[in-house]
Amino acid sequence: MSKIAILGYGTVGSGVFCVLRENKDLIARRAGEAVEVKYVLDLREFPGDPVEDVLVHDFDIIKNDPEVEIVAEVMGGTGAAYKFVKASLEAGKSVCTSNKALVAEYGRELMAIAEEKGLCFLFEASCGGVIPIIRAINESLTADELDEVSGILNGTTNYILDQMNRCGKDFGDALKEAQEKGYAEADPSADVEGHDTCRKLAILSSLAYGKCVNYKDIDTEGITAITREDIEYARAMGRRIKLLGTSRRTPDGVYAIVAPFLVEENNPLYGIEDVYNAVFVHGNMAGSLMFYGSGAGKLPTASAVTADIIEIVRNRGHKVPTNWTSESLCLEDTALITGRFFVRVRDLTHGEIEELFGEAETFETEHLLDEIGIITPNMTQEAFRAIAGKLGDRLIKMIRIKD
Amino acid sequence: MSKIAILGYGTVGSGVFCVLRENKDLIARRAGEAVEVKYVLDLREFPGDPVEDVLVHDFDIIKNDPEVEIVAEVMGGTGAAYKFVKASLEAGKSVCTSNKALVAEYGRELMAIAEEKGLCFLFEASCGGVIPIIRAINESLTADELDEVSGILNGTTNYILDQMNRCGKDFGDALKEAQEKGYAEADPSADVEGHDTCRKLAILSSLAYGKCVNYKDIDTEGITAITREDIEYARAMGRRIKLLGTSRRTPDGVYAIVAPFLVEENNPLYGIEDVYNAVFVHGNMAGSLMFYGSGAGKLPTASAVTADIIEIVRNRGHKVPTNWTSESLCLEDTALITGRFFVRVRDLTHGEIEELFGEAETFETEHLLDEIGIITPNMTQEAFRAIAGKLGDRLIKMIRIKD
Repeated sequence: MSKIAILGYGTVGSGVFCVLRENKDLIARRAGEAVEVKYVLDLREFPGDPVEDVLVHDFDIIKNDPEVEIVAEVMGGTGAAYKFVKASLEAGKSVCTSNKALVAEYGRELMAIAEEKGLCFLFEASCGGVIPIIRAINESLTADELDEVSGILNGTTNYILDQMNRCGKDFGDALKEAQEKGYAEADPSADVEGHDTCRKLAILSSLAYGKCVNYKDIDTEGITAITREDIEYARAMGRRIKLLGTSRRTPDGVYAIVAPFLVEENNPLYGIEDVYNAVFVHGNMAGSLMFYGSGAGKLPTASAVTADIIEIVRNRGHKVPTNWTSESLCLEDTALITGRFFVRVRDLTHGEIEELFGEAETFETEHLLDEIGIITPNMTQEAFRAIAGKLGDRLIKMIRIKD
Repeated sequence: MSKIAILGYGTVGSGVFCVLRENKDLIARRAGEAVEVKYVLDLREFPGDPVEDVLVHDFDIIKNDPEVEIVAEVMGGTGAAYKFVKASLEAGKSVCTSNKALVAEYGRELMAIAEEKGLCFLFEASCGGVIPIIRAINESLTADELDEVSGILNGTTNYILDQMNRCGKDFGDALKEAQEKGYAEADPSADVEGHDTCRKLAILSSLAYGKCVNYKDIDTEGITAITREDIEYARAMGRRIKLLGTSRRTPDGVYAIVAPFLVEENNPLYGIEDVYNAVFVHGNMAGSLMFYGSGAGKLPTASAVTADIIEIVRNRGHKVPTNWTSESLCLEDTALITGRFFVRVRDLTHGEIEELFGEAETFETEHLLDEIGIITPNMTQEAFRAIAGKLGDRLIKMIRIKD
């Protein structure tokens, strides 16, 4: 019998409680022993809810109970969550968490404590919701040097862009709808500004390349500037705009960026709809792989947290393998990333376009008569910025093209 | 230092040899120790190839060498491969294999020997090539009761259907092209008749539902009867024809079937192109997941085999978890599967169609003027067969609809 504590009885916490109860027998079979929730920590009361029997308001009860072997942190944030996770590890309890902000900010420190104490610190649910991408990197793609991780890592923004791409809505309406459906928070900035994707990309890149990526080093651009006009061009090009977190290992080093990208129809990320997430990985032997699943939601996220709990129980006394190291990875300057850019320009003759961009593909749409869309040839971001400087306000918009 | 032997120096075997050499350092880091190929077994000679130094022609050398801890069987077939794998396990060596025919036929016996001896018998590369679907089921989706596994599990047939779906080729031309490109064998029947998919579905279903499925019990239909006309209807319906292996757990039991299905555009399996494979899984908590990657090919398959080798080394003295059990799963009669059917019929009035099928959607195409396409309402296969009996030769073709 393994006894655990859940920190937080919000969406994910109540999900974990539910999964452990509903699938109790099969979980016991797979873990090799029963898994019992001894405590759930939350400041609130839940009268009439089955959690009442195990609800506590004081973390010290959990910390000081030697019977509690595993702590599942699903509170979110980096305040109390950090304090409690650190104290749990220091008290000799393994921890799993769905909290990407915590892992991106304090992962290195918390992993070091876990290592030192011979404990597990697992965070499968922190990236891509239910998608078992972390275990895939740590345990399945072990024969490969990974050279790319790119993903749709935020369900809210994918929902908004999907509504814009497929239903022609504008950003404001799509955001409002996402809020009404409970997919976006009242303050949606962490999602729509790309911060959430940035943290997840930092975690996945740290594992993929075996060195710690600091999320603060990742150039991050959200989707708030994407307009219906951009979508109209995307459609004319047979592409969709997706918010991607993408990192690549090149001979010069690792680049990482979060930004909206134009994705071609034959790219497996093109068809990812609704609030789904997907992670594309490329290995030097495995080639291209993609993993797809629900990026959020009570039960899918809880399923991933619970799988971590089961892995900890199964591996008691045995180290769960991870690619995580404490060494820092210094990202290359994104100015040197090469790629193609889609730009919307005005007041430019075809001669001037050729002079600036060389051989560029151009697009015109039915409704935007006083401008022109261009796909540039391959160039560095630096070179593009120099051209943008020359264009001044004749440059209406730039969106990167996903290769 | 872990010493291994590779049985077979064909496509996959030479791939494993290459992966272990090219990614030697990172594999040593991840495995926790160096992995050295002590022997490669093949009857042929390879003059000038680096394998020469370790090439042996007699399996007994491997069997009798106590230094060899792991055997990677990548010969294929169920003759010598079975004999050698069994002898390796009996000699106390863990085994990994890419051989679905071997696992589907003898998996239960070989797993029992491995269990008894405290060894590993791993076969990640046997289903879906590089896709880490087996590890996902065994180690990641552990909190879930799985209720569906459906996949495009054969790259050759997906290539052929993709050429037919997207380029309008007919079956014969597409097959010929696949053969020219080396995707299909001279005798393509194991692929195009669905036998390969059937074995893989049996393995995946055994793991998903925790009881052994006998591949001989799975109703299997290939793609040889699919015509250009069928594809034309598919296109008119906004669907694509895919060869799926699909199994479902229902309150009545588990159903499994291999057959061509019409897949809708919003199904994640719709967009799987070329020789790629994809596996869709549904869990009672996790919801829908899909895994996508190269279904065959020297290095991708070798990457999966090598990841198994690394897992065995990492877990020395520790049991690698699996859902495999020796209990048999008795599949339900597919006659009771319900679903919708697409049928092409001739010489039938709309009145007769309504009488036979109730409210059915009908399709007409530009070129096939003397027939009509129908999507039936939901019905059992049994009920459909009764109607088919009444139709006689007025029924031109039936293809199942994927829900």
